[in-house]
Amino acid sequence: MTISLRKARTIIRKTFEKGREMELKPLSIVVLDAGGNVQAFEREDGAAPGRFEIAFGKAYGTVMLGIPGSAQMARAESQGYFMTCVNGAYGGNVIPVPGGILMRDRKGAVVGAIGVTGDTSDNDAIAGVVGVEAAGLVAES
Amino acid sequence: MTISLRKARTIIRKTFEKGREMELKPLSIVVLDAGGNVQAFEREDGAAPGRFEIAFGKAYGTVMLGIPGSAQMARAESQGYFMTCVNGAYGGNVIPVPGGILMRDRKGAVVGAIGVTGDTSDNDAIAGVVGVEAAGLVAES
Amino acid sequence: MTISLRKARTIIRKTFEKGREMELKPLSIVVLDAGGNVQAFEREDGAAPGRFEIAFGKAYGTVMLGIPGSAQMARAESQGYFMTCVNGAYGGNVIPVPGGILMRDRKGAVVGAIGVTGDTSDNDAIAGVVGVEAAGLVAES
Amino acid sequence: MTISLRKARTIIRKTFEKGREMELKPLSIVVLDAGGNVQAFEREDGAAPGRFEIAFGKAYGTVMLGIPGSAQMARAESQGYFMTCVNGAYGGNVIPVPGGILMRDRKGAVVGAIGVTGDTSDNDAIAGVVGVEAAGLVAES
Repeated sequence: MTISLRKARTIIRKTFEKGREMELKPLSIVVLDAGGNVQAFEREDGAAPGRFEIAFGKAYGTVMLGIPGSAQMARAESQGYFMTCVNGAYGGNVIPVPGGILMRDRKGAVVGAIGVTGDTSDNDAIAGVVGVEAAGLVAES
Repeated sequence: MTISLRKARTIIRKTFEKGREMELKPLSIVVLDAGGNVQAFEREDGAAPGRFEIAFGKAYGTVMLGIPGSAQMARAESQGYFMTCVNGAYGGNVIPVPGGILMRDRKGAVVGAIGVTGDTSDNDAIAGVVGVEAAGLVAES
Repeated sequence: MTISLRKARTIIRKTFEKGREMELKPLSIVVLDAGGNVQAFEREDGAAPGRFEIAFGKAYGTVMLGIPGSAQMARAESQGYFMTCVNGAYGGNVIPVPGGILMRDRKGAVVGAIGVTGDTSDNDAIAGVVGVEAAGLVAES
Repeated sequence: MTISLRKARTIIRKTFEKGREMELKPLSIVVLDAGGNVQAFEREDGAAPGRFEIAFGKAYGTVMLGIPGSAQMARAESQGYFMTCVNGAYGGNVIPVPGGILMRDRKGAVVGAIGVTGDTSDNDAIAGVVGVEAAGLVAES
């Protein structure tokens, strides 16, 4: 039910590599453990200063609700007030768009979530999934 | 104007039993007293870590406004900004969807509220009503 | 790295039993998992309404810092401003006194924390340790 | 007025190396830029879950006030209420003890701050200074 720093580093490096391959804007990634606590974060040079908060919001909502960013976005599109209120309940720490990716081990247990931000939300998610899979984990994005 | 721990336990157990009978996802339930304060809470194994906040939000808005989750949702559907602002006024602790259930005694006095979360909002509410009624109380969901 | 609802219930019941044996005032107990998220809570009849927040504060600081309530109190006695500022960093959710008990499994891994409140802090801690040990866990109080 | 991710990584790795050499408990380190924004963070395996908030508090107060942790502690020792109120003014994000280290370039310009936590505050600071200097920067701790 936890994630090692070694795996967190792999996820971050591989997500950045994929971002460069896709020629995305500078990315930022946070890795949270299964309890919603920060394990690791990196912000690429050239990224805007406030990227930690966005990355954290994508990952935090994902792990606390057990629902990835894309599903949160679908709910927000159909019931905007619901996700707004969920954001309030979680202290303003929820960003319900793609780039919030749930991570499971091979047995299906949630081991944490990542939040990727910097390019379009869809591109953020594509790069992040590559990072999660490179660490031998299953990504739900 | 209060609810005993014994009744709170009955509500929780019977809601969980109904959830298993309906084959719902793992549920979480909070029982609040008539003052909006936590009496009891349980999160079933396998539920996402952030379920306390969602359950609390459903129950807190219900007891503080004296209006169950379904009526809050109707208001949110017609006036989204209103419930968003109510969420702010109550410190982010309002989740205006079904699963927030007002509890009354046989004379009609409000004795508290419960918040159920984990499956669809409608299923959460169905299971919770069974729990409230099993404790000899009247549910307004 | 997690705690089952079954164990959480055992901890709560055994702590209450010990409290009654010691003729303590009504107790309240929260059980948090290793990530600081609420697993279960119960407030005995007759306890003051705001006991959830106190129990949560004892347990939350304990698990987030990895330090039990007694050690937090020692630090607060020698460096009051430090624990006040830690409280700020954790959103006001730290109550640095006995009754915050770290729980480990037989291998030494932290599986969560409990917060007990209602009587004197020292008595709260004595009862809580009995509860934790009854669940087959190691208590650091 | 900024710090590269490359340098941030060097600081983190060298601080961890020093910690292992000194046989410290697992460390956590945050690197903030000159604007107080998160550039990078890592939490070693075995560290308590809430270490991000403590590391951030050490670094944030340091860079926002332009004063390292040791000097903040001296002020707190003589005027506890002052640092408590500074903590409030900065949203609870100030932990005024050693381990908050100001970083300057060779010309004396502040380029950011780090926050190190996990062992005693003094040991945290010793390890962190080694990390900052390994990146070719000047540490004020």
